[in-house]
Amino acid sequence: MSDQEKTYEEPSFEEIKDRIMQLLDAKKYISARQELMALNEADIAEVISDAEDEVGIEMAIILFRMLPKDEAAEVFSRLSSADQTAIIERITDHEIKTIIDEMDFDDMIDALEELPANIVDKILEKATKEERKLINTFLNYPDDSAGSLMTPDYISLQQEWTVGDALAYIKRVGMDKETIYTCYVKDKGRRLIGIVSLRSLVTRGEDTPIAELMADDIVFVNVFDDREGVSDMFRKYGFLAMPVVDNEKRLVGIITMDDILRVVEEETTEDIERMVGVIDRSDKEYFDSSIMHQVRSRLPWLILLMVSAMFTGLVIAHFETTLAKVTSLAIYLPLLMGTGGNSGSQASTLVIRGLAVGEIELKDAPRVLWREFRIGFIVAACLSVVNLCKIIFLDQQPLAIALTACGAQLIIIVIAKCLGGLLPLAAKKVGIDPALMAAPFISSLTDTFACFTYFTLASIIFHI
Amino acid sequence: MSDQEKTYEEPSFEEIKDRIMQLLDAKKYISARQELMALNEADIAEVISDAEDEVGIEMAIILFRMLPKDEAAEVFSRLSSADQTAIIERITDHEIKTIIDEMDFDDMIDALEELPANIVDKILEKATKEERKLINTFLNYPDDSAGSLMTPDYISLQQEWTVGDALAYIKRVGMDKETIYTCYVKDKGRRLIGIVSLRSLVTRGEDTPIAELMADDIVFVNVFDDREGVSDMFRKYGFLAMPVVDNEKRLVGIITMDDILRVVEEETTEDIERMVGVIDRSDKEYFDSSIMHQVRSRLPWLILLMVSAMFTGLVIAHFETTLAKVTSLAIYLPLLMGTGGNSGSQASTLVIRGLAVGEIELKDAPRVLWREFRIGFIVAACLSVVNLCKIIFLDQQPLAIALTACGAQLIIIVIAKCLGGLLPLAAKKVGIDPALMAAPFISSLTDTFACFTYFTLASIIFHI
Repeated sequence: MSDQEKTYEEPSFEEIKDRIMQLLDAKKYISARQELMALNEADIAEVISDAEDEVGIEMAIILFRMLPKDEAAEVFSRLSSADQTAIIERITDHEIKTIIDEMDFDDMIDALEELPANIVDKILEKATKEERKLINTFLNYPDDSAGSLMTPDYISLQQEWTVGDALAYIKRVGMDKETIYTCYVKDKGRRLIGIVSLRSLVTRGEDTPIAELMADDIVFVNVFDDREGVSDMFRKYGFLAMPVVDNEKRLVGIITMDDILRVVEEETTEDIERMVGVIDRSDKEYFDSSIMHQVRSRLPWLILLMVSAMFTGLVIAHFETTLAKVTSLAIYLPLLMGTGGNSGSQASTLVIRGLAVGEIELKDAPRVLWREFRIGFIVAACLSVVNLCKIIFLDQQPLAIALTACGAQLIIIVIAKCLGGLLPLAAKKVGIDPALMAAPFISSLTDTFACFTYFTLASIIFHI
Repeated sequence: MSDQEKTYEEPSFEEIKDRIMQLLDAKKYISARQELMALNEADIAEVISDAEDEVGIEMAIILFRMLPKDEAAEVFSRLSSADQTAIIERITDHEIKTIIDEMDFDDMIDALEELPANIVDKILEKATKEERKLINTFLNYPDDSAGSLMTPDYISLQQEWTVGDALAYIKRVGMDKETIYTCYVKDKGRRLIGIVSLRSLVTRGEDTPIAELMADDIVFVNVFDDREGVSDMFRKYGFLAMPVVDNEKRLVGIITMDDILRVVEEETTEDIERMVGVIDRSDKEYFDSSIMHQVRSRLPWLILLMVSAMFTGLVIAHFETTLAKVTSLAIYLPLLMGTGGNSGSQASTLVIRGLAVGEIELKDAPRVLWREFRIGFIVAACLSVVNLCKIIFLDQQPLAIALTACGAQLIIIVIAKCLGGLLPLAAKKVGIDPALMAAPFISSLTDTFACFTYFTLASIIFHI
């Protein structure tokens, strides 16, 4: 970018992508390569992925082969596992070996965890014996653990070194490490005793001893810690990297913040899916999973909800004589079930989210209840008054029906808000994921007691 | 942490917190201070916040005053705005001035954006005239913009410098900057022409010119870009910091990744709240907002849903004669509305999330429709068969009722899945937030056509 003006009149990424596709189509590979090489790795990965969708895998392979080897590894690690598989199946063994050698260790583990077993075997064949051993150790950490996120490529300094020694060492090995901005000091038993930031190294005198510089209020995670807990720690402390220790408290790797954004995204997706009863542990994206996989993750909860809806049916069946005498009661049933369910799920969702981000704790249950009771009462009063006017003046129904519907609505909304606030806390208390207490479950529960409250009130008011 | 063994037998953070509270209670301030000072800033902020809840604001102030001034600023920036207000109101003007001087610029802007106007004025009075001018510029960027997240405290290098010059400069000013790990090179018009990582500085020779080292495939954001777009860029590129430019493409600040985790959290909370019809633009947490604020953010959507539930009521009113003749039809109404609504909201939620993380785009609409149609058909078939057996064998209802309920269920679920898949895309197309097409809206819509389908089918089967 020698010509400054050019920078700011340059075409958007979408335009460059289109141009590359056109050049490929016209078989102008040298020009296509030129355009491609000017892009950042993340953008190149997007071009290759789109090329596969739009002009076929063969074209994507041609693009991939245009990259120099270090960039190829970087781009490869940013592709989806479906794209990675497609490429691995088509490139030579020598090319596979080159990619493995150039890839960051944690990216390689990420890739291997997602790829099909035959592809993993193909890759492992190309690794040296030591590499294979290390890879297998990392692959054995549970999918959702800190161990599966970490990399062993960190900078390790000696306590007795000076800043000058440390900088000389970093100069030598720094390029191959995941990060050099946080460095770690271990004792002879490989246990972590201090942390030194590169910032303190470059702002201090050459002769300062590392021992004097290092921070010893160390925050660390265990290899088997859940990755959701790890991302909470990153959010709380704002660190760029977090050390990971084994059960003997020996330093085994580090997790860097750039991997955490992806974890947060996946964990949030999982939470949101659970909140509508999609139970899917695979981390697969929408289009990456098969139809049957989707059916399996959606069906169980729907069946459960169907069973609970049957109870609501039982309640109605129980009051069939009431309904037969005053059929128009049925007209207001959807309204009561709807506002009840929605009121409840507003409360439960806010509490589920509060629990997830750590704002609400179990001990807050009484406060939540008292808040939801008041909010519920005000909301219910507003809605019931609107509804009362509508039933009397617009629908011109008898006052008895209006009072039944609005009285029931008042009770239902207040109870729904309170239940919505408390159930996620109760779930957490007994070790169930609070996210399961979201809209579908709360709505089903509310439906049942809405019917019960409504018809009970009707029997009283109409003396049936 | 001179004694290594001690490290790993040391008490948990919760235990330390309890001990500090006990020491405060016993007025053993020196011991309390010792315990407090051994903690990380994020943990100290948590202790102070808990102290305010549990033993009162006066105790929290005592704890806060125990901190050395640089640490006090760091801790202050991590407190909630309610806690910040309480402290500012109680400390001296001199103490306020010290905190401002020590605070990172972007943390100060964050704090000022949330604090009440009178407190902001109190703080601004303590700033110098230049500081006040800069603060006001930053406060004027829209709340959700890149400008409101950035800091002007970045390292700026000259193109004609060598690595040695740059390192000497960083050594001098590095401690006051938000980050030194990514440095920026500007031309004479203050426009960004290159980016240099500290990693490349410390791993290269002293005499290497900066111009040779700097990367020029620059990714940047505009000050007025939406912060959600900014966090997408961080996720895509994995950078530690992102430069922010104004409309003339001049570098005005940088955003660092540690602030992005909080943005992602807040944006996700907003998305999740919208998905249950809680429309709240204030970024306030659950306990931080007043009861009336909660009522205002929940009520409008509930009223809208009540109106839509009235349409469902109209449909039932229309079929009142059918219902009067076969009252037991009402028994299966909750089941149809429930499974329909839930099926639809599963689909819509997955699509909303796919849109949010960038996996699904508008052009995918036909693919989404075809997927949801197939998933819907399989799910509907399974549920309807279960339901058919239940109605015939368990409920011992006539075959005609069983066929009506199960036929309707099949149609309703397939349509609900397709609608659920398409509506978020349609919303995005016309510029409405797709998150509004989640559970409550889809359920209401499904309720209406579930009633319509069910009773229409009943009229046909029962010849009414």
